[in-house]
Amino acid sequence: MAGNSFGKLFNLTTYGESHGPALGGVIDGCPPGVTLDIEAIQNELNRRKPGQSAIVTQRKEPDTVKFHSGIFEGKTTGTPIGFVIENTNQKSHDYSHIKDSYRPSHADYTYDQKYGLRDYRGGGRSSARETACRVVAGAIAKQVLKDVEITAYVSAVGTMKLDKLYTELDLSQTESNAVRCPDQTMAANMETYIKEVRSKGDTVGGIVSCVIKNVPVGLGEPVFDKLHAELGKAMLSINAVKGFEYGSGFHGSTMYGSAHNDAFNTDGSTKTNYSGGIQGGISNGMDIYFNVAFKPVATLIQKYDTIDKDGNIVEMQGKGRHDPCVVPRAVPIVEAMAALVLADFYLLNKMY
Amino acid sequence: MAGNSFGKLFNLTTYGESHGPALGGVIDGCPPGVTLDIEAIQNELNRRKPGQSAIVTQRKEPDTVKFHSGIFEGKTTGTPIGFVIENTNQKSHDYSHIKDSYRPSHADYTYDQKYGLRDYRGGGRSSARETACRVVAGAIAKQVLKDVEITAYVSAVGTMKLDKLYTELDLSQTESNAVRCPDQTMAANMETYIKEVRSKGDTVGGIVSCVIKNVPVGLGEPVFDKLHAELGKAMLSINAVKGFEYGSGFHGSTMYGSAHNDAFNTDGSTKTNYSGGIQGGISNGMDIYFNVAFKPVATLIQKYDTIDKDGNIVEMQGKGRHDPCVVPRAVPIVEAMAALVLADFYLLNKMY
Amino acid sequence: MAGNSFGKLFNLTTYGESHGPALGGVIDGCPPGVTLDIEAIQNELNRRKPGQSAIVTQRKEPDTVKFHSGIFEGKTTGTPIGFVIENTNQKSHDYSHIKDSYRPSHADYTYDQKYGLRDYRGGGRSSARETACRVVAGAIAKQVLKDVEITAYVSAVGTMKLDKLYTELDLSQTESNAVRCPDQTMAANMETYIKEVRSKGDTVGGIVSCVIKNVPVGLGEPVFDKLHAELGKAMLSINAVKGFEYGSGFHGSTMYGSAHNDAFNTDGSTKTNYSGGIQGGISNGMDIYFNVAFKPVATLIQKYDTIDKDGNIVEMQGKGRHDPCVVPRAVPIVEAMAALVLADFYLLNKMY
Amino acid sequence: MAGNSFGKLFNLTTYGESHGPALGGVIDGCPPGVTLDIEAIQNELNRRKPGQSAIVTQRKEPDTVKFHSGIFEGKTTGTPIGFVIENTNQKSHDYSHIKDSYRPSHADYTYDQKYGLRDYRGGGRSSARETACRVVAGAIAKQVLKDVEITAYVSAVGTMKLDKLYTELDLSQTESNAVRCPDQTMAANMETYIKEVRSKGDTVGGIVSCVIKNVPVGLGEPVFDKLHAELGKAMLSINAVKGFEYGSGFHGSTMYGSAHNDAFNTDGSTKTNYSGGIQGGISNGMDIYFNVAFKPVATLIQKYDTIDKDGNIVEMQGKGRHDPCVVPRAVPIVEAMAALVLADFYLLNKMY
Repeated sequence: MAGNSFGKLFNLTTYGESHGPALGGVIDGCPPGVTLDIEAIQNELNRRKPGQSAIVTQRKEPDTVKFHSGIFEGKTTGTPIGFVIENTNQKSHDYSHIKDSYRPSHADYTYDQKYGLRDYRGGGRSSARETACRVVAGAIAKQVLKDVEITAYVSAVGTMKLDKLYTELDLSQTESNAVRCPDQTMAANMETYIKEVRSKGDTVGGIVSCVIKNVPVGLGEPVFDKLHAELGKAMLSINAVKGFEYGSGFHGSTMYGSAHNDAFNTDGSTKTNYSGGIQGGISNGMDIYFNVAFKPVATLIQKYDTIDKDGNIVEMQGKGRHDPCVVPRAVPIVEAMAALVLADFYLLNKMY
Repeated sequence: MAGNSFGKLFNLTTYGESHGPALGGVIDGCPPGVTLDIEAIQNELNRRKPGQSAIVTQRKEPDTVKFHSGIFEGKTTGTPIGFVIENTNQKSHDYSHIKDSYRPSHADYTYDQKYGLRDYRGGGRSSARETACRVVAGAIAKQVLKDVEITAYVSAVGTMKLDKLYTELDLSQTESNAVRCPDQTMAANMETYIKEVRSKGDTVGGIVSCVIKNVPVGLGEPVFDKLHAELGKAMLSINAVKGFEYGSGFHGSTMYGSAHNDAFNTDGSTKTNYSGGIQGGISNGMDIYFNVAFKPVATLIQKYDTIDKDGNIVEMQGKGRHDPCVVPRAVPIVEAMAALVLADFYLLNKMY
Repeated sequence: MAGNSFGKLFNLTTYGESHGPALGGVIDGCPPGVTLDIEAIQNELNRRKPGQSAIVTQRKEPDTVKFHSGIFEGKTTGTPIGFVIENTNQKSHDYSHIKDSYRPSHADYTYDQKYGLRDYRGGGRSSARETACRVVAGAIAKQVLKDVEITAYVSAVGTMKLDKLYTELDLSQTESNAVRCPDQTMAANMETYIKEVRSKGDTVGGIVSCVIKNVPVGLGEPVFDKLHAELGKAMLSINAVKGFEYGSGFHGSTMYGSAHNDAFNTDGSTKTNYSGGIQGGISNGMDIYFNVAFKPVATLIQKYDTIDKDGNIVEMQGKGRHDPCVVPRAVPIVEAMAALVLADFYLLNKMY
Repeated sequence: MAGNSFGKLFNLTTYGESHGPALGGVIDGCPPGVTLDIEAIQNELNRRKPGQSAIVTQRKEPDTVKFHSGIFEGKTTGTPIGFVIENTNQKSHDYSHIKDSYRPSHADYTYDQKYGLRDYRGGGRSSARETACRVVAGAIAKQVLKDVEITAYVSAVGTMKLDKLYTELDLSQTESNAVRCPDQTMAANMETYIKEVRSKGDTVGGIVSCVIKNVPVGLGEPVFDKLHAELGKAMLSINAVKGFEYGSGFHGSTMYGSAHNDAFNTDGSTKTNYSGGIQGGISNGMDIYFNVAFKPVATLIQKYDTIDKDGNIVEMQGKGRHDPCVVPRAVPIVEAMAALVLADFYLLNKMY
């Protein structure tokens, strides 16, 4: 109810602030008998963690996950999986500059207004550090889903856009560069661009695209819990996301029905896939694909004026170790949230 | 769980098939003591109903809502509000042409695959006729929200796009034309265009934009149930929706942080509003605005080949009374879903 | 959230006041493909309805259920089942005597205090008339559960108690008398007793016992949603219920472990069944049995003093058509709630 | 869904096995701004912990709770409160004797049947050790509830029953003896009795009674989520509970309405309180009181025959450190679960 749980049958509850002692979570509803590859889970965390390349924040956090329950002799037991990620880098910073002031386009103001107080250290709960827990749970969800392949990649950084559909790309190249763009030339350009942006103390937005293959037919619970509606909610719940589109997306709104309809092959597959693998809110077995738009990070390494909680104008100066562009690190987060949605619908669909 | 309920505290459950005896629903959690304007509710239904203008489906349905409970002496009592909308136009059509065949880009195939059978009359549960119940509940939610103003309008039909922000438009003009576009010249062009498309037996997509004013600060429940995440889910749950963006949206992904950040005024309002009225998943009191992309309606008045359930190729012919473009009728549905989301968060926020 | 829904996967939402136009509900999550026996559903309603015998309220209500959706060609479709039971006997009584006064041990006072107003006609939402909807849904749940046999019966009326375990009774005799007690001699005595109580304008409590046979092993979701915990909640949610015990129950608290433990047979069944068919919150395949205590009906056909909403003492006089003892009519309600719990856990257990 | 969460707005999710590395949980929905008394929380844990007196299990566990989030500068922040209790006493026991065998009246058989495997060390998830997390959350709920007083005590051990209503007892004496019975003479007798039972390697059941004072009027959400229905579920979810009754309880079923009705005083309070502080599922401001029946612990320090998972008869011998009677340690657990229910309804009631 209070917003820190996700999923119905495969349910994740998370906790933790950016600079508290630890983050953690509970996965309730993971099926029993799944042989967990713990290293694969840690690998997903490593894809998200700070300091992994020259174009992401240089905060140092090992982000090591420890499991407390729900796993016995290497297998899930069907009981809740509790896990913890310690914050090792919670040094007693001087936060006096943000304690009473509201950074523009951050959650400082709204948290204070809603809750009456906030843990201001490093953004507290509103920090994207929280997504580490999503990655842990998503990595487990991937192992539950077995044959389903979920692959995200960066398709735009600022105005630099990869104008190709995923079918024209070699997605196996995604992890070979720091940007996580499967087109190596574009990736190199994006990397140069991100460095330029950072050198000015500025930030820039971008787009993460995601493809899901081998989805069983039948996932999704209309009329409200349509598969794409939950995917959309999942993506929009990630920090900094401003938009979501699947299949033909916004472009589809400009098309004629005669061009947009996906004619059937005799096996139930379709010749085109403007539907994006979902019809009437239910997966049809074709690839699901979607785009997620991220705004530029709000923390600039620049001086600016803002207000304190009494409405006085104060000068602030962003410091430190922030991402100039979130999309490279957002790739595993997008995959994790997609995995959570699919695992949940996969279990729900067993009801039928 | 099975997908026909929406909202936590202000909760709507709907039922009904396109050609069954009736649609209906239950609103549980409506606050007590609200003096309901029943005519205003019926007016919202009338904005959605078929046959209201020359550019929408000519199916005739009075769509009269009857209330069974939860209202006493003109006021809500805090007990569940049950309501029914009878289907008067459920003539015993000949549906043999769709009974065993799957129309492209409809839910015929996925419903059959998921449930093992389907009510094929007029699309059954997958018909957008279901949204009538959402409009009833949304109209009540609007009355709960009182000062909050929710206004949707058509901003694009096919490639005809109103390239203005809502602040440049006179939204009071929206209902003065059949398209529900606040720019009268554009509206006239769109109307002509929709008629052309229909005359070819084709359909076209479009975009509905929505603005919400006077939202209290503090609505939204991070980290998963962010205000925009629930709005996104709500919109994506509407039939034919392919995309959702709020505030700066997809365009925001191309911007620099230095341009995108919304500087504060001393009263906590912001000088710009790229954030779209939401920071960190919580409303900040500025206007919320978003776009919803609709694909073209899948039912064409044309001949085409498709498959039956045994995988044989069969020829079909769309008939009858379909919308050439859904966006004019989608305007009240978008508003209704927005109202449901806000009413729910408004009640949840009373916890604090 | 607001309390009018029950169940997770097999979910019932109900609405309706005692003297409003109709009661009704929605069952969301009923599996598709179940051939529904509509007459069997109506029969369950008839077991609950007023006026069925000389020892129950003489209010006349046909209690005919009409289905609006979710059933096609005789089978459930997996979409929500909407249903309505009209109140035909909602005559414009004179309710001035209870409008502003609070009847003792009724919900008049608490509803007014909680909601700020109430539909006072016939008790409004707090009337046990609401349970008609539970019986409809329970009758469908029984058909989903197929081989599971749920049988309730009256085991006590006031101090008249059937001191035999269900295994010593011929439960097929339950429906052969108006009291619904399987022991015919006891039933006759109870009937006489209830008539005596009524003739004094008084009421009396009683106990309904219930046995569930052929339960699959594995139902129940510890640690919080234990099978008996949900059964207990289900029973306690029925009007006038004051207590619940299962298996050895309160008597079990007086026993030694050496006497109470149920030794296994080699097939996993147990030699005794003090556990009541549930171990650790999960069904073990043995019979589930439990008792439900009902208080005496609060409405007496006597004069008494009470208060009005301004705290003045007023004299009231119960009138009309009330049950002198609820347990005979509670039997199908207990069965219905048990069926809802089991159907829900049955579906949830498919996740594993 | 999978059963390890409790509460709607004030929501607790727990994890942990008896002999895993740690137990823990997340409280989501705790209101912000509550100054937490951490020592009071630890004190509640100490009331539950093993080894505290001569009549409880001698397992040694410090049961120290550590908080990871949701608390800042001594106050709750409104974000989720993550906490951990390490298992320090998880020595690598030899569990071969229970690994493949099913102890009678334990959850061994049902867990294996449901999940296909189980963590057999010390009962795994089915161990009452899990209730430590409930006590932590309940202790926080008590601090949220401020003026509400929740007091449980032992009212029966085996056939030794304290036949007095709580109003005749001095509840301040409860904690002064190891049994937690407020009548000192009875407490002494019970203690002697429990020691005798233990000396025979046997166990015995008992009853915990609970009183809740200063409850605001209006808590509870009929028709399904009645206050007493949720209290009943909460109590029945505690290990070893077989029955629940509130107010007049099972005895009430033997009474006449004329004796059972609670006449009003002019201030809305009632002269008697057979209703147990709840009318129509909503608190009326009078004391809430209820009884919870516990079966005898299943683990005996005796030899007995049982079966292994292949259906062979095997001889087992209970060992070690078990409670001869659970009720003394169950007292704080009953209070904790009551506090969770009330805190949840308290927050829900803010909606109105």
